[in-house]
Amino acid sequence: MSRANLANLYKVTDGKKFKLSEYNPADTYGLDIDKGEAKERLEQDVKSLSDLQERLYAQDRWSVLLIFQAMDAAGKDSAIEHVMSGINPQGCQVHSFKTPTAIELDHDFMWRTSCALPERGRIGVFNRSYYEEVLVVRAHPEILAKQRLPQKLVTKDIWEERFEDIRNFERYLARNGTLILKFFLHVSKEEQKKRFLDRIDERDKNWKFNPGDVAERALWDKYMNAYEDAIRNTAAEYAPWYVVPADKKWYTRLVVAAAIDEAMQGLNLQFPTVDKAGLEELKKAREILANEK
Amino acid sequence: MSRANLANLYKVTDGKKFKLSEYNPADTYGLDIDKGEAKERLEQDVKSLSDLQERLYAQDRWSVLLIFQAMDAAGKDSAIEHVMSGINPQGCQVHSFKTPTAIELDHDFMWRTSCALPERGRIGVFNRSYYEEVLVVRAHPEILAKQRLPQKLVTKDIWEERFEDIRNFERYLARNGTLILKFFLHVSKEEQKKRFLDRIDERDKNWKFNPGDVAERALWDKYMNAYEDAIRNTAAEYAPWYVVPADKKWYTRLVVAAAIDEAMQGLNLQFPTVDKAGLEELKKAREILANEK
Repeated sequence: MSRANLANLYKVTDGKKFKLSEYNPADTYGLDIDKGEAKERLEQDVKSLSDLQERLYAQDRWSVLLIFQAMDAAGKDSAIEHVMSGINPQGCQVHSFKTPTAIELDHDFMWRTSCALPERGRIGVFNRSYYEEVLVVRAHPEILAKQRLPQKLVTKDIWEERFEDIRNFERYLARNGTLILKFFLHVSKEEQKKRFLDRIDERDKNWKFNPGDVAERALWDKYMNAYEDAIRNTAAEYAPWYVVPADKKWYTRLVVAAAIDEAMQGLNLQFPTVDKAGLEELKKAREILANEK
Repeated sequence: MSRANLANLYKVTDGKKFKLSEYNPADTYGLDIDKGEAKERLEQDVKSLSDLQERLYAQDRWSVLLIFQAMDAAGKDSAIEHVMSGINPQGCQVHSFKTPTAIELDHDFMWRTSCALPERGRIGVFNRSYYEEVLVVRAHPEILAKQRLPQKLVTKDIWEERFEDIRNFERYLARNGTLILKFFLHVSKEEQKKRFLDRIDERDKNWKFNPGDVAERALWDKYMNAYEDAIRNTAAEYAPWYVVPADKKWYTRLVVAAAIDEAMQGLNLQFPTVDKAGLEELKKAREILANEK
């Protein structure tokens, strides 16, 4: 199974007929490999990514934006850690977006993420993003009420408008040289329960657990509907969603790495070459250095 | 002539049939008032604006974005100075956008202005803006070549795409509570020449003159075409352009003040009122204060 094929299994570029129920969180595409083998494969992928990142940085034209969204304990943090750890941090910035601050709420809903967008030549990772505005805010109408929007702008069309604004914004970014890849780490409700219990029972994992997580879990169906609708409305060629099976962490990581690798290969990233005049200058510089006393 | 009527003379909300040649830079709508009278009228307008700004700040829901674009010496700086000077600077931020820095060029073309957008409750003034990307960049193709966009994204459609992206972005801002007003200070080529000569001949004005200004002037027709096309493509109900006559500075200021005043009146800004529970709390606070020893 090539990387491209693996990634394409879960790639959504046209959301019209998208149904979350058609995706199995426990899928591993029949791959039955042990931990060591999975680790080895991932290492190869990370090496390839590291090479691509160096070209991206040297060419300094494209930027890459990776968006991670998921329910709690689906493995966002660990996917980011394991897939991106081999990459030169000089060319990679991770931003985690938590509950908006008062200053952030005083702006349009994409403001805080817009300011954090990656520069040309860099990979930017958003651990959560403006998609929270059509996910958590949709599951919790009381959050919308607190957003200080002028009342008359909050109509029944607000979600459609947000989807349209997100689509337009992502197309604009793509037109300006940003490769956008969006990952929904799709974990099952059963697996989340297991991971929560681990976090409660294992002392070293206690810090990861927040009693509020159980309350969010009670809204599971609302969240799944919101995810399905968000993917339906914002999947595009220029900004695909990947619905990544997340019940097996090793598989999640392989799929994420494969997707990034495949998409970056498509950019045809090259080290800048030097023209004739440049070669002349290099020659002169060599002479000066060689004749230095 | 009411403020609303004065503003509406120059307001463009649908650009399809817009022709710059139909607007006279020397127009004063037959108003023939002396300097003192003009100053007095402007003072009244500024007082009204100051009151509106206080309500905007107290209500803390809407924000106001004022965009100023013009040829050199058209009076952007002085219009901003004279119209906004009566306003509490705590509620008003002015950003001047000069030649983009290396960091700014490493982002999408609306990035630097997006980060500077006004918060709810504030008036943000952009002295030049992302419109430069379809004005100066259009008059100087060599600037576009330096923008480090991936080559394959720079097609003949780039201006149409930028217009579309700007339209979508402004609609998005409007949906999120930003009142957007765009001012093109329309100065004639003759008047610019006069003002340039003043800047050269008067010692105190020398600092305002840049020898490059004359080179830009040589591209006058290119610029006018670019302005016309920009206004045609981006005028909207949610983000109108005002084509303000700029040969008489006193008149420019009256029109700009009138336009802001009229649009802000339309927001129906109110001081927040206190509900029953709030009144009870105020009563208690009064008692505590009165009984303090």
